[in-house]
Amino acid sequence: MTGLRTDLYELRMAASYLRRDMVAPATFSLFVRRLPPRRGFLVAAGLAEALAFLEGFAFDDDELGYLRDVVGLDQPTVAALAGLRFTGDVRAVPEGRVVFADEPLLEVTAPIAEAQLVETGVLNLLTFHTTVASKAARCRLAAGDAELVDFAFRRTHGIEAGAGVARASAIAGFAATSDVEAAWRYGLQPSGTMAHSYVEAFPDERAAFRAFAADFPTNPVFLVDTYDTPAGVRAAVEVITELGLTGPLGVRLDSGDLAALAEQTRAILDGAGLTQAKIVASGSLDEDVIAALVAKGAPIDAYGIGTRMGVSFDAPSLDSAYKLVAFGDRPVLKLSPGKATLPGPKQVFRDPAGASGDVVGLRDEPPPAGREPLLVPVMRGGRRLEPADPAGEVRAARRRFDADLAWLPEGARRLADPTPLTATVSPGLAELRDRVTAQAGRGGAY
Amino acid sequence: MTGLRTDLYELRMAASYLRRDMVAPATFSLFVRRLPPRRGFLVAAGLAEALAFLEGFAFDDDELGYLRDVVGLDQPTVAALAGLRFTGDVRAVPEGRVVFADEPLLEVTAPIAEAQLVETGVLNLLTFHTTVASKAARCRLAAGDAELVDFAFRRTHGIEAGAGVARASAIAGFAATSDVEAAWRYGLQPSGTMAHSYVEAFPDERAAFRAFAADFPTNPVFLVDTYDTPAGVRAAVEVITELGLTGPLGVRLDSGDLAALAEQTRAILDGAGLTQAKIVASGSLDEDVIAALVAKGAPIDAYGIGTRMGVSFDAPSLDSAYKLVAFGDRPVLKLSPGKATLPGPKQVFRDPAGASGDVVGLRDEPPPAGREPLLVPVMRGGRRLEPADPAGEVRAARRRFDADLAWLPEGARRLADPTPLTATVSPGLAELRDRVTAQAGRGGAY
Repeated sequence: MTGLRTDLYELRMAASYLRRDMVAPATFSLFVRRLPPRRGFLVAAGLAEALAFLEGFAFDDDELGYLRDVVGLDQPTVAALAGLRFTGDVRAVPEGRVVFADEPLLEVTAPIAEAQLVETGVLNLLTFHTTVASKAARCRLAAGDAELVDFAFRRTHGIEAGAGVARASAIAGFAATSDVEAAWRYGLQPSGTMAHSYVEAFPDERAAFRAFAADFPTNPVFLVDTYDTPAGVRAAVEVITELGLTGPLGVRLDSGDLAALAEQTRAILDGAGLTQAKIVASGSLDEDVIAALVAKGAPIDAYGIGTRMGVSFDAPSLDSAYKLVAFGDRPVLKLSPGKATLPGPKQVFRDPAGASGDVVGLRDEPPPAGREPLLVPVMRGGRRLEPADPAGEVRAARRRFDADLAWLPEGARRLADPTPLTATVSPGLAELRDRVTAQAGRGGAY
Repeated sequence: MTGLRTDLYELRMAASYLRRDMVAPATFSLFVRRLPPRRGFLVAAGLAEALAFLEGFAFDDDELGYLRDVVGLDQPTVAALAGLRFTGDVRAVPEGRVVFADEPLLEVTAPIAEAQLVETGVLNLLTFHTTVASKAARCRLAAGDAELVDFAFRRTHGIEAGAGVARASAIAGFAATSDVEAAWRYGLQPSGTMAHSYVEAFPDERAAFRAFAADFPTNPVFLVDTYDTPAGVRAAVEVITELGLTGPLGVRLDSGDLAALAEQTRAILDGAGLTQAKIVASGSLDEDVIAALVAKGAPIDAYGIGTRMGVSFDAPSLDSAYKLVAFGDRPVLKLSPGKATLPGPKQVFRDPAGASGDVVGLRDEPPPAGREPLLVPVMRGGRRLEPADPAGEVRAARRRFDADLAWLPEGARRLADPTPLTATVSPGLAELRDRVTAQAGRGGAY
């Protein structure tokens, strides 16, 4: 069960609400306060994982026993938690859409104890997936037409994170993943051939390449940098020629000066008539390294991108928040320095022409002329409006990202010194903010 | 099942080995090639998780069907994988011990297909846990005698990563975690009281504090920065006085100038006779912020440290590797530029006096005078030598870290510009390296 997958303070607050019969619906809004340096946009991701978390949220007997015996919750509270499920409504920006700072990605409306208990899981999942999808999107911008493969699994933050990275990078347009479980779960293309250890397990490179090609004649990719790269490429060429391989195949470069080695490798391959052979590059790649390789015209057909994408090395998290914006019929806010929030349930209105930034307004206000709302209902009464479809969700998200990438203004796409679009506040929301702030200043949070 | 929790290339290589009856034992060595900037040492962590992964490694029928039908492995290979378990031996540095670059943290010896298949999971888990424990250790160094609490769960890389961060930070000396599931699983102290949303759900701060203290009179911590911090502290004092609370309690500051606010808060609390009330600080903390607060003499008793520790913000991964060092009876290495490896099974020999860096030698060579070996046997024939004990393992690891922290030379402890100890290579290992390199240069990897 998943009920303990929360912060202790959520449980204490929920217990207090349940004891006091505070069951009015609360709306919490999840947003990113500011973009990390060098991010011109974010790619919304993780929603399907968050909805699965919400549908599964419940406490089993062992968990309830822990809360009673170790955490010290009293019996009436434990009994109330035993029957608790998430019964709320969720509106969200669909996965794959491009978003910016200060815009709600998701809003939960539920009895306040439920909405509070799920904060940790929902915030965790949307933050993680959006962080990685946004980093992966930068790799895609850098790589042009080259194919991208997720090689991150070995250094993600745990095993589950590996699957999350595979999913998030697929949304951003990666063509395949090395993570077999993730490929299975999400209908992705699994990818991978050999490591240095394979080459070392044979008496020499030719023997290793010959064995591998015999066992996997469909699209073998020979790793050529174990000892000396040009010699490794020539060994691959000999084996390819000797075995008469004519289908798709390639070589992988994993170390050294990739631009120079790719040139040399291309020349050796072409000289042997293997113009169809692809060159795959890997090894500590990120969008900056790829952009530099592309700028040099390195003849690289595909990039295997690992750790630096999978942990979003330069910005491994987002300044995300899940904040109460309404309780019962009153909008609320907080005024903490640097962390003030906007009251009330919201909507984001986008200009499909891309000529101006998004407008953040009230949930129920009519869209400004020509603008489209970004948040859509995705869950009602604790049930998803669309049944879970792990592979279909990723495909749909990737299509949305493709469309939004075409829409995204040049300034926000830039890898270096990007200019993100800035969201503005609608007159209706500004009026509500000023009114609630004035009331809070007089001692209440209404 | 867990068999698909691997990279596709591991499966292809394993399939090739199985087809060719290449069943000789291989030894793979896991080490960190270089420390991240600003790290003077690492804290070994994740071993118990890796051993659980190894014990559970197996393919179920659905997974085998996927490998046959989608990945395209042939039936004899699928049949071989159906019966495959990890049957190897593992030696490792115990969790909690301080380690440095170029030292094996773990060595696996197993039939090569098995040793290859588990690479991804073992490398993933040791890298992730060691990354986070090492960051958490820096927070501990910064905080002096103040108590540290893991608040990272909401922004770790997924739900499972939250539990991993709680565990890794506990090894480094954190006193408690907000992650309830992790506290349950690993016998940690769960911690947390209220969020801003709780304060906002009541008509004013006094009403919120009064309700919370009534529901949780044992050690309540009042969050005082929702609207105006000094006013919040005064509201807490009024409620404490009104309800006659005399046990342990405190206030939490989560925004603003924490040093100045802590001073003001201490003065208000002391002025009301609440000298026992603790001040907890949180909000984008890391070792640098904490060190600055400590340097200013800020009267803060405990720190809640979240995202920046939980994703190891400034160094979210390590340059770790899992490399073949022996196959059958021959030591092997690779010579890739910048990624060359040392051949043969190894041992790390430490000077308990701390006067000199570790010596990396051959597994079976006698320890140099006065030095102790760091790697110990932890698994034989695929079974752990000690039964799993999630809570006991964390406690033992924390004790080891306490001892190693007392041993660690000052230069390596420094937060800024640390000087890590440098491992040297024993004469025996150097001789083997030179011999194997010369042979590889003549065309073989022996």
